[in-house]
Amino acid sequence: MNNTMSEQNSTTAYEALKSRFQRLSAIGGAQAMLSWDRSTMMPEGGSAARAEQQATLSLIAHEIMTAPEVTDLLTSAHESAEALPAWDRANLNEMSRVHAHATATPTDLVSKLSHQRSSTEMIWRKARAANDFAMLAPELEKLLGLVREQAAAKADALGLTPYDALLDSYDPDRRSADIDILFTELEIFLPDLLQQVMEKQASAPRPLPVTGSFPVALQEKLGREVMSILGFDFHHGRLDVSLHPFTGGVPDDSRITTRYDESDFVESLMAVIHETGHSLYERGLPPEWRNQPVGRSRGMTIHESQSLLFEMQAGRSEEFIRHLAPRLKSTFGGEGEAWSADNLLRHYRQVGPSLIRVSADEVTYPLHVILRYRLERAMIAGDLVPADLPGAWNEGMNALLGITPPDDASGCMQDVHWPSGSFGYFPTYTLGALTAAQLFQAARKAHKSIDSELEQGDFAQLVAWVREHVHGVGSSRTPDEIIVAATGEPLGADAFKRHIKTRYLDR
Amino acid sequence: MNNTMSEQNSTTAYEALKSRFQRLSAIGGAQAMLSWDRSTMMPEGGSAARAEQQATLSLIAHEIMTAPEVTDLLTSAHESAEALPAWDRANLNEMSRVHAHATATPTDLVSKLSHQRSSTEMIWRKARAANDFAMLAPELEKLLGLVREQAAAKADALGLTPYDALLDSYDPDRRSADIDILFTELEIFLPDLLQQVMEKQASAPRPLPVTGSFPVALQEKLGREVMSILGFDFHHGRLDVSLHPFTGGVPDDSRITTRYDESDFVESLMAVIHETGHSLYERGLPPEWRNQPVGRSRGMTIHESQSLLFEMQAGRSEEFIRHLAPRLKSTFGGEGEAWSADNLLRHYRQVGPSLIRVSADEVTYPLHVILRYRLERAMIAGDLVPADLPGAWNEGMNALLGITPPDDASGCMQDVHWPSGSFGYFPTYTLGALTAAQLFQAARKAHKSIDSELEQGDFAQLVAWVREHVHGVGSSRTPDEIIVAATGEPLGADAFKRHIKTRYLDR
Repeated sequence: MNNTMSEQNSTTAYEALKSRFQRLSAIGGAQAMLSWDRSTMMPEGGSAARAEQQATLSLIAHEIMTAPEVTDLLTSAHESAEALPAWDRANLNEMSRVHAHATATPTDLVSKLSHQRSSTEMIWRKARAANDFAMLAPELEKLLGLVREQAAAKADALGLTPYDALLDSYDPDRRSADIDILFTELEIFLPDLLQQVMEKQASAPRPLPVTGSFPVALQEKLGREVMSILGFDFHHGRLDVSLHPFTGGVPDDSRITTRYDESDFVESLMAVIHETGHSLYERGLPPEWRNQPVGRSRGMTIHESQSLLFEMQAGRSEEFIRHLAPRLKSTFGGEGEAWSADNLLRHYRQVGPSLIRVSADEVTYPLHVILRYRLERAMIAGDLVPADLPGAWNEGMNALLGITPPDDASGCMQDVHWPSGSFGYFPTYTLGALTAAQLFQAARKAHKSIDSELEQGDFAQLVAWVREHVHGVGSSRTPDEIIVAATGEPLGADAFKRHIKTRYLDR
Repeated sequence: MNNTMSEQNSTTAYEALKSRFQRLSAIGGAQAMLSWDRSTMMPEGGSAARAEQQATLSLIAHEIMTAPEVTDLLTSAHESAEALPAWDRANLNEMSRVHAHATATPTDLVSKLSHQRSSTEMIWRKARAANDFAMLAPELEKLLGLVREQAAAKADALGLTPYDALLDSYDPDRRSADIDILFTELEIFLPDLLQQVMEKQASAPRPLPVTGSFPVALQEKLGREVMSILGFDFHHGRLDVSLHPFTGGVPDDSRITTRYDESDFVESLMAVIHETGHSLYERGLPPEWRNQPVGRSRGMTIHESQSLLFEMQAGRSEEFIRHLAPRLKSTFGGEGEAWSADNLLRHYRQVGPSLIRVSADEVTYPLHVILRYRLERAMIAGDLVPADLPGAWNEGMNALLGITPPDDASGCMQDVHWPSGSFGYFPTYTLGALTAAQLFQAARKAHKSIDSELEQGDFAQLVAWVREHVHGVGSSRTPDEIIVAATGEPLGADAFKRHIKTRYLDR
């Protein structure tokens, strides 16, 4: 075959792959909508029919992705990849990456895993409600067995350790060796710092309680206002209610959710800001690559960095709270000193050890994650069996946070991740927090006016900066390449540590 | 091949078809949800992404249905169909029927039609708004050309006339020769009767106006109450808002919509009752055949008979209006004689010629349909070109209803059907009305207490009757077989004529 012909074939192969992946993207979009609807709109009686719809689309997508000709097309396309423009080359690489992940797990294992996940998650709901770990243990044991099989298969196919092979599907190119270094640094830094912050808080006047009744309609109105301030485009998205807040839909139709508690508006508001961060990322992905792998978001660490940049960095900054305070006061008709920016700041920056990860403050949160990371690595390595999980959990909580859960429901059964088969996901929460701190620091360094703009409720420049340096990059770079290009440094813990010290100690 | 082997092969072939059609059913369910969402929830900016999702699922479904092996499987399964239980045999026949329709149109024509439909419908929206038929005519001409090609292809494949081939996809086994007889009978009966009713109305006292402001929240509450009375199960369905009321979703998750006008509650309420009729049909389809062709609803005539049975027959019956009147009065805080059952009855039974089909009363409605039926048959036959449509329309309106539209927007451009390529659909509205009358008459004959039950707001026995005689039959019989089995007679116009006379003249 002469060179020209080979190039032609490769172009054809690449074009064939593009149309195949475009189809996969459309199926993925349909799945995202079905899943959003399931959590927001679907009446309970529709769940069996919906499960059948979702399983069918998953199966069809799996068939399209793993059809034997895809391997040949990829080989052929790679033969003259250097002739392709840079984004197409990155797209082809990303095709290979997702294809390698999809084909690494044998089809019958995919199906076994899917069933075991559903049943374990169902039993977990009951076991947690009954505070009965013994009920969960045998199912979790079975699920872990299948996940370990999957990890081994992926490890073989990808040339990674089993845990890293799982991690790689959530956070591409991330390795546990790097996480170990970062997490050890946090484990040394945080407990001491926590002690100092708590002493400082104990000697300061206690914040005044912000109490009242906060009707859902007003909370929703406030949420929509804040979303607009952050740059959410309601022409391309919605706000709804679900049991757990999430961001769903597709980039051009991005749907976030929250939940409401009429005795406390902050949880809902912060969830709205958090999910808006996720949503802005999806909306900002490169429009011309909407339906191709390179146009997708770049894994869970980068995704979480965007939600936390808006929620924890900008959203809870002193500047933005100063902007928000009078708006909160007028929305809810609040009165008195309790509604001052200073009191609100004090109020929402109380830190201390607690049992539940999802309601932990940003200082203690990484310690919850470190615990889970250590335990799940041990489980994947075969060094910890689910039966021994409660003991190991409580020991870890005591060592890291100095508290011991009174029961397993508020201990090792609190999270859905393991019962739903997600191992390798937890570290991305804290990696996301570190990334958020590092990105926000770089953005403020590049644009000195960001702080004062936040005080004016003006997010335009901050959003423009992340659009350019993160959102618009899509999956054309690895997470670490994105971080280096945006901040000048590889991911570290320095910016996060500085952020925590400044916010909680120096102020 | 010996007999046993052949039977084994056929069973295997039938089982293979079943799993293929189960997959098609799940894809259809997903499509139904995407389409519901598009009309109720989707922000406008999501429309391009949604179109891509919908087109992709349609294409996948088309590929699954028209794959060459399906023809072989059908042939093989039919070879020993007599060994199958009755419902499976009916299921196999229905598979062949939908397969014949799907494969009759060449794939490139399917695609051309799909694009021309979209563009013609888009131009129709503009042309109607601008009252400019000349803008629509060339596009409609192109679309009609493709529809006639499709009709010819289907006619060849199905051994029918071109118009009947189109009709068959909306109302299986219905032939225009039968429609001609029924419609001629109505065309003779209705104008005279209309004259008599109008004279009677003119000599009676005018109904008192039912005016006021009817807040959406109260209308929605009323709608939900009435849905519950009719037997709608909110565990398996929802009520939402859309531009045009419709019934969507799947049998186990049935979603109806309405729209609200705060100066008039009747349109919304009647839409709710109408769509609840459609929804009850879907909910009542045989549960054990949920995902197979034989478990589907039996075409548009039977479907419309269910909505009209609940809206026009039971819903506007004197008995149910007597039940409804005090509920309406208390819901909206109405006062005085205007809110009496007698006045409400008079009010909502005013009849007379009007321009717009969708808001026509049940006496004049069939005349609107007859006009469209005649014109679309002429267009499919090549006897009428779109350019001549306005003249033919106005002439027909004048002959049938004695009025002439002032413009084409309220004349031949009022309906979306033709610009969206639906030819052969219109007659099912009136065939549905005839069927509804005949079914309601049979139900009341079988259960003398139905009238008094409706006055108590008790629909249980009526619903049970249609469940047994219509809903639960699915597609195991043809529409006419369903009607004969349920009423003892083939579809005729007698029951409808009797109903109209009784309600509007004799009372």
